[in-house]
Amino acid sequence: MTTDNHNKNAGDSILEKPISRRDILRLAGVGGAGLLLGASGVGAIFGAKGTTVSGAAKSSDKADRVEFFGKHQAGITTPAQDFLMFAAFDLTTGSVDEVRKLFKAWTEASAAMAKGDMIGENNENLNLPPSDTGEAAGLHPSRTTITFGVGPTFFDSRFGLSSKRPAALVDLPPFGGDELREEWSGGDIGVQVNANDMQIAFHAIRNLARIARGKAVLRWTQEGFQRTGGADPTGATPRNLMGFKDGTGNPDTKNDALMNDVVWAQSGDGTPWMAGGSYMVVRRIRIRVEVWDRSTLGDQEATFGRHRQSGAPIGSSNEFDPVDLSKKDEKGKPLIPVHSHVALARGDGSIKILRRSYSYSSGMDNRTGQFDAGLLFICYNRDARKQFIPMQQKLGQNDVLNEYIVHNGSAVFACFPGVREGGYIGDTLL
Amino acid sequence: MTTDNHNKNAGDSILEKPISRRDILRLAGVGGAGLLLGASGVGAIFGAKGTTVSGAAKSSDKADRVEFFGKHQAGITTPAQDFLMFAAFDLTTGSVDEVRKLFKAWTEASAAMAKGDMIGENNENLNLPPSDTGEAAGLHPSRTTITFGVGPTFFDSRFGLSSKRPAALVDLPPFGGDELREEWSGGDIGVQVNANDMQIAFHAIRNLARIARGKAVLRWTQEGFQRTGGADPTGATPRNLMGFKDGTGNPDTKNDALMNDVVWAQSGDGTPWMAGGSYMVVRRIRIRVEVWDRSTLGDQEATFGRHRQSGAPIGSSNEFDPVDLSKKDEKGKPLIPVHSHVALARGDGSIKILRRSYSYSSGMDNRTGQFDAGLLFICYNRDARKQFIPMQQKLGQNDVLNEYIVHNGSAVFACFPGVREGGYIGDTLL
Repeated sequence: MTTDNHNKNAGDSILEKPISRRDILRLAGVGGAGLLLGASGVGAIFGAKGTTVSGAAKSSDKADRVEFFGKHQAGITTPAQDFLMFAAFDLTTGSVDEVRKLFKAWTEASAAMAKGDMIGENNENLNLPPSDTGEAAGLHPSRTTITFGVGPTFFDSRFGLSSKRPAALVDLPPFGGDELREEWSGGDIGVQVNANDMQIAFHAIRNLARIARGKAVLRWTQEGFQRTGGADPTGATPRNLMGFKDGTGNPDTKNDALMNDVVWAQSGDGTPWMAGGSYMVVRRIRIRVEVWDRSTLGDQEATFGRHRQSGAPIGSSNEFDPVDLSKKDEKGKPLIPVHSHVALARGDGSIKILRRSYSYSSGMDNRTGQFDAGLLFICYNRDARKQFIPMQQKLGQNDVLNEYIVHNGSAVFACFPGVREGGYIGDTLL
Repeated sequence: MTTDNHNKNAGDSILEKPISRRDILRLAGVGGAGLLLGASGVGAIFGAKGTTVSGAAKSSDKADRVEFFGKHQAGITTPAQDFLMFAAFDLTTGSVDEVRKLFKAWTEASAAMAKGDMIGENNENLNLPPSDTGEAAGLHPSRTTITFGVGPTFFDSRFGLSSKRPAALVDLPPFGGDELREEWSGGDIGVQVNANDMQIAFHAIRNLARIARGKAVLRWTQEGFQRTGGADPTGATPRNLMGFKDGTGNPDTKNDALMNDVVWAQSGDGTPWMAGGSYMVVRRIRIRVEVWDRSTLGDQEATFGRHRQSGAPIGSSNEFDPVDLSKKDEKGKPLIPVHSHVALARGDGSIKILRRSYSYSSGMDNRTGQFDAGLLFICYNRDARKQFIPMQQKLGQNDVLNEYIVHNGSAVFACFPGVREGGYIGDTLL
């Protein structure tokens, strides 16, 4: 396969600067929808006519974009996007220097992807593999966030970082209902990518895996979705695959004091390099949908402790009505069953976590002919020892929901504080 | 788990009619976004204030809806939606009467889902399993289409229909590059669900599988995606996971004469019950993305015969420029390599098919640590013996793309003609 021919083509080598995804969008705005110009068109239009980027295209672009750099990593208190691509990586290098190089390269790529730009400089040179795999070219940033953390194994003997392991980064204890499988558990590094477009989310993990070549390999991945914004312009709480609203009880992410209490590790917490970061727990929860679908609506509602349609606590009418576990019916029985999911997860209300879960559908379980579908549960907390773990211990023992679900994957990651421009992920640790 | 308590709750049993997904949307429009009313609210608002459905909500609803009934099945020449959930089923009943019952029930459910309505009547009764699994409640119709076909095994000895098997419904011959696996091949029945929302697409297959209980079981499923409309408001041709535009060469679906020639089986074709139907070929094509990503842009473009960025044939500037295989460079070599994908697929231009493919990402291949990602290739043709098969035979033997892809799943289905209101899928056959 010779490539000599193409080098002569106008449009392949005129531009000095690589064209970005946003450039393509702007051109579409300037040149009319549907007309996507070749690279040569950039010079032609901008040069000859002096056209500048249209304000409209630019602002819709901005509204659609979440900044990668900041005090905290994006993708934690950021309002949830429609899609998830989660990946756990294992490091294959034994050199902390190589890890640092990897994290720097990932930072640069992630910042570009959050902007909707192509990664790297070699996207026009016919004689090199393109820096960017290209499937997200021309797409809006779509609120892409990329959130990085390191697991307990990152602090084993390989990198001399054992002493820096946060006390809060514990291995999760076994929980009732666990049927964990290696193929969906653990990882030296965890990366959560969210975007309002699945192709963009896939693109991000694929390109991060590619950049990691020789330093880290994929350990496991999981795609996830919610209803898209287009299907629900009201922005109502999304439903999980059991048909119930999921996330109603989340703490208010706009309340900074609450987030400092519930989500963000603090400088006084014993691990200074984690200040402003958060601990992510990931659980792959398969739903036995076939069994669930055979239970009555009454049983389903008693299982969750909420009404299916409205999302309201049993005995109330509105989704956001307070969960009052003391309410009784005329026979003196609690309206919200004591072993229902909401009753146990809520408890006395003192333990809070920030849920950021996505439904998944991963084909079929070929052994049983049943759907492999459920929830990739993701939550963030300041200290899993005081939040997720005690909550899950209670749920694992008593939650009537356990009849219908199986936890088959599990991982925990210390997610770094945010990166300042010029810095890189993990620079407070490395 | 007693359910007595809930029966007394206002809002659970007041309505005579089940609430539909669209009703919920209308209420959201009437009552304000974010306020989702319990079922009791319907009567309260509509009764007391005499409010009618707002025109705006209704029209956005309509624009978002593809009619299930019609001359042809929807989902074939319908402009492609953003998501796919494909499922193949095997019949477990041996009675053609039971098959007919299944197809009638599927028709009713599909027509409801295309409208964005809940399935069935039992979605409020606490003492029954809900008719609808509920995860799509409150969502727009999102252009849902559900397209049904039957495979060659449907015409074996079980149902006495062997004599009705269309001659055009052949078992596909082996092709070069095939590494087919049972787990992604075949099926008595094939169902293609498309929607602009993944949760809705999943919901549809799940509910069809549920309705089939005792009559048919899932054989295999595959989720798929394209970039979402929101990420690309220009509506440009989507890119596949190799970064190239996919579908540029599709015939014009608005040209009825062309569709009659390329897509729709005709009454004179030898199988009267298939007139107005079409033959669907499904191929699960895994892309060796890691290998592809190591090849140069020049090699990639020579492999497809198109420029990556613009989608234009090599040597041309615009995506829709004609593919002229006779163009030569100054040394007399063809500009578009003769074994490139576009050159072989196009040939002399006489063979056309209608492609309707979706990218997929199905986690990882645990044996290799590589992405299990690629394309669920779907095409429709009037007669695969004259269209898909000869085209794929040429591609299987010579396509340089084969270095980077593996066909690991395969199926073919005779998709029924459209259903008239009051009829049911397959009624021309059964």
